[in-house]
Amino acid sequence: MNERSFVRAARTVTPVDMAAAQAAAILHNQLTKPAGSLGRLEQVGVQLSAIARTCPPPVPEPVTVAVFAADHGVVAEGVTAWPQEVTAQMVANFCAGGAAINVLARHTGAEVIVVDVGVATPIGTDTPGLVRRNVRPGTGNIAVEPAMTPAQARTALDVGAGVAAEAASRGARMLVTGDMGIGNTTTSAAVIAAITGLPAAAVTGRGAGADEAVLARKMQVVGRARQRIPAPADPLLILTELGGLEIAALAGFIVGAAASRLPVVVDGVIATAAALTAVALVPDAAGYLIAGHRSCEPGAAAALAHLGIEPLLDLQMRLGEGSGATLAVPLVQAAAKILAEMATFDAAGVIGKQPRG
Amino acid sequence: MNERSFVRAARTVTPVDMAAAQAAAILHNQLTKPAGSLGRLEQVGVQLSAIARTCPPPVPEPVTVAVFAADHGVVAEGVTAWPQEVTAQMVANFCAGGAAINVLARHTGAEVIVVDVGVATPIGTDTPGLVRRNVRPGTGNIAVEPAMTPAQARTALDVGAGVAAEAASRGARMLVTGDMGIGNTTTSAAVIAAITGLPAAAVTGRGAGADEAVLARKMQVVGRARQRIPAPADPLLILTELGGLEIAALAGFIVGAAASRLPVVVDGVIATAAALTAVALVPDAAGYLIAGHRSCEPGAAAALAHLGIEPLLDLQMRLGEGSGATLAVPLVQAAAKILAEMATFDAAGVIGKQPRG
Repeated sequence: MNERSFVRAARTVTPVDMAAAQAAAILHNQLTKPAGSLGRLEQVGVQLSAIARTCPPPVPEPVTVAVFAADHGVVAEGVTAWPQEVTAQMVANFCAGGAAINVLARHTGAEVIVVDVGVATPIGTDTPGLVRRNVRPGTGNIAVEPAMTPAQARTALDVGAGVAAEAASRGARMLVTGDMGIGNTTTSAAVIAAITGLPAAAVTGRGAGADEAVLARKMQVVGRARQRIPAPADPLLILTELGGLEIAALAGFIVGAAASRLPVVVDGVIATAAALTAVALVPDAAGYLIAGHRSCEPGAAAALAHLGIEPLLDLQMRLGEGSGATLAVPLVQAAAKILAEMATFDAAGVIGKQPRG
Repeated sequence: MNERSFVRAARTVTPVDMAAAQAAAILHNQLTKPAGSLGRLEQVGVQLSAIARTCPPPVPEPVTVAVFAADHGVVAEGVTAWPQEVTAQMVANFCAGGAAINVLARHTGAEVIVVDVGVATPIGTDTPGLVRRNVRPGTGNIAVEPAMTPAQARTALDVGAGVAAEAASRGARMLVTGDMGIGNTTTSAAVIAAITGLPAAAVTGRGAGADEAVLARKMQVVGRARQRIPAPADPLLILTELGGLEIAALAGFIVGAAASRLPVVVDGVIATAAALTAVALVPDAAGYLIAGHRSCEPGAAAALAHLGIEPLLDLQMRLGEGSGATLAVPLVQAAAKILAEMATFDAAGVIGKQPRG
């Protein structure tokens, strides 16, 4: 992997193509259905056309889900009751194919890439396929110290951009963000608070089941962490001070997807913290983002509102791993097929185009 | 087709199995994820187990989408600006594979069966695969007269139950309701108003794009139609007086699915009017219903609330044809695979079961 993967990707990103978007909107109104009656699916078709610079857009397959795993020093503050070893144990579970993301990716025909970008517990050699890019064994405790050095943040961005470029070069036509890291809802909330300017209480949630006492500690930690950096702050400073290594890698991955002109599907609070960071670093990456699922975490809703994008699914899921985004993959692919395969009123001999009710 | 298909199906329906449902809920809590973190997907997995009487449930595939098409005499009241011939033209489009439901069904690997249960315009012979079960060429104008005779309502119920039984005997393991009929949002609103007891204004919507004037006429027509029958009324009387032939056939199809112990996915206002009718006729059919998509039509929301079920998708679609239900098929199948394929905490060597946050 080239150390400068992220910088190169960031320079490569160009805005999506609004002419192709317009062509898709026009084509939708010629297809044998009442105008606008496919709702959000039509919006996705327009976006896919804009991303692909052509209408109808190609069906975005094959799909690669990249799960970035890392640990978080902030667990020392008691922000989660899960032991830190679970991050490494779940990495082994991902590599063995037994986690929810494996099941859902197989179901949708997607490949899963598992990347250790900063797991604290040593991961054994019985993890087939694991991509080892460990930048450091977990971040610092953001309540009291920087998460990482600026150089480590840049390296993690490079890891993500590199994974995206490799997936694209192997033929992937859509990318999906995945994440694993005990403590990472706290870190994500801090990043979202810093970028959106919202208070800790507005962006901090229960993660994987925090009770009232743990939630109160999480909010206090997010508030303390935020106070350590000036507002407004540079997104790279926010990553360095508050970020997780998987959040930094995911931000690089999103920018890498945009550089390869591929749609990238995000879901929960970790992925949307990364998406906010990616767009803060490279604004034109925003056009490549598709929100797959609305997380229960308040920070995810705040991040999506800040980005101005609406998720496709709302299944009250709060697992992470990229599970919500992966479930949205068939919907995104369906949107492309509608534009490519539906008959027009003229071709099908259906009376159309007059006002109808 | 046996004339008594519906009666036989209705007698065959038995409640879903709550012991299998409980087994699924217990298994979900042993899988490598925070308890409850797959949200609605876990609820669907529990329901599939209850329907299949076993846990984990088999993956519900292959899938058959049955699109029932019929016309509605109520179009004489100016409740839609689409010409009635569009019903027959869209039937030809379905048989040629160019409509949205064809694209979405191919995408999800589902078969589409198109059934003429009461189209008014003669349908040419160039419609390969069309199942011809025309009970009468469109209903009466429900604003002023019965939609059909009681015998015709029973025949339409038989058509639907027969199509479900045939699909099950050919190997379908999940059924999806589809519908086509110019004017059928008005008819559906009348059926929903009569069964739920709600006023016309609460259940009548814009259908395929009604403007203010047309919407006002639709509400007035729904109100007049409802007043012709006593409240509370027998569901067969409601079908006879207010129903569409496709609504009756879909009600029979839903009961037929339940009789074959298959999950049946419904979506918009026509399908939910049929689901209300099916459950009014055969209460135990309710356990087999999965709501695929939340329609924009107020009547659909009222029907789902009355049935106490929540839809999986909300993509602001208002097309009909079974399009919203078909898009939900991969989610339903994913729910079954989660139970069948995910590793347990014990098997994966992941620390679990303690309270965590």
